[in-house]
Amino acid sequence: MVKKKGLLLVVSGPSGAGKGTICKELLKDNNQIKLSVSATTRSPRAGEVEGVNYYFIGKDKFTDMIGKGEFLEYAQIYDNFYGTPKAAIIESLENGQNVLLEIEMQGAKQIKEVYPEGVFIFVLPPSLEELKNRIVGRGTETKEEIDKRFSCAFEEINQIVNYDYFIVNEDVEKSAKEIEGIISSEKNKVSRYKNNIIAKFKEEL
Amino acid sequence: MVKKKGLLLVVSGPSGAGKGTICKELLKDNNQIKLSVSATTRSPRAGEVEGVNYYFIGKDKFTDMIGKGEFLEYAQIYDNFYGTPKAAIIESLENGQNVLLEIEMQGAKQIKEVYPEGVFIFVLPPSLEELKNRIVGRGTETKEEIDKRFSCAFEEINQIVNYDYFIVNEDVEKSAKEIEGIISSEKNKVSRYKNNIIAKFKEEL
Repeated sequence: MVKKKGLLLVVSGPSGAGKGTICKELLKDNNQIKLSVSATTRSPRAGEVEGVNYYFIGKDKFTDMIGKGEFLEYAQIYDNFYGTPKAAIIESLENGQNVLLEIEMQGAKQIKEVYPEGVFIFVLPPSLEELKNRIVGRGTETKEEIDKRFSCAFEEINQIVNYDYFIVNEDVEKSAKEIEGIISSEKNKVSRYKNNIIAKFKEEL
Repeated sequence: MVKKKGLLLVVSGPSGAGKGTICKELLKDNNQIKLSVSATTRSPRAGEVEGVNYYFIGKDKFTDMIGKGEFLEYAQIYDNFYGTPKAAIIESLENGQNVLLEIEMQGAKQIKEVYPEGVFIFVLPPSLEELKNRIVGRGTETKEEIDKRFSCAFEEINQIVNYDYFIVNEDVEKSAKEIEGIISSEKNKVSRYKNNIIAKFKEEL
């Protein structure tokens, strides 16, 4: 058999496109995929569990990790840092485990720079109108914020050219199935495994 | 919705790897994929049906079609010509229908030159030993022919670098499933549909 490394699946796209719901659906009854857990310097909220929702670490430790290049990406939002620790992900990938990372577009861009062999998936809303409805439906944003998001959305969609795949999120189950198809096909890609294949058959000569 | 053209799936690989069996499995209960029918100048054998096994055409007609560039690929084997007519395939693809083409490696190479947007899939045997067993098992070739095929097989496998995907054919059903994953994921490829996507959302602005 050809030995296969795990895939780093980076799921991103405009806010309101439904990345989170798709990822939750994808992880349901699926032991082929491990969700990446972020680190943060903010305090845990009620019900949040260390190592499940986040790794909660101190600011000194966080900046120390930044200095050592131990994040795939990180960002500062107001007073807090958020980041994706590299070590656990690399270990899982080496063990053949796929890792899922749901992340906003700026973070995805950083990851592509340091790990271009990741599989970059862009989640699209069925339409801009539908995107607006979803953001309004959440009821967590002011009218101004909603208008701002909406006017950014088309610009954001143009960034799709930096991604490998797109998912038009009309139906969550269908979208998750499509990502499963992507995972399956990436494991059959010649560009990923050609050296392993040729080496394997060479052994037999 | 983003309008999607059909895919031309070109399945090739060394003789004995099991392309034919995989394609048969893939077409079973599948109306998403249409099998391409070749044209030939040889006479129909008992039981062969026009338009199913081959399009049986005269030598004059065949050379006329070559002159007009009406084949995706063609080859002369002894006194007979064999070729893949272009028109029907292009029409199916435009209508969103996927077309499956099972073909030897020389033909696949010709097709890649004229239709690089095809999806090129290389079927591998689990091992060279297994490849040999399968060719011996067929009982249609002499010992000399078998040895010749076997000594060519590694060279043939090196040509995998010209293909998009590989399938290690250990189990026919699993192999067909993997091709279904490839088909699904190719329909989600940004490089294939980015202009359609951006145009679709631009309309809404």
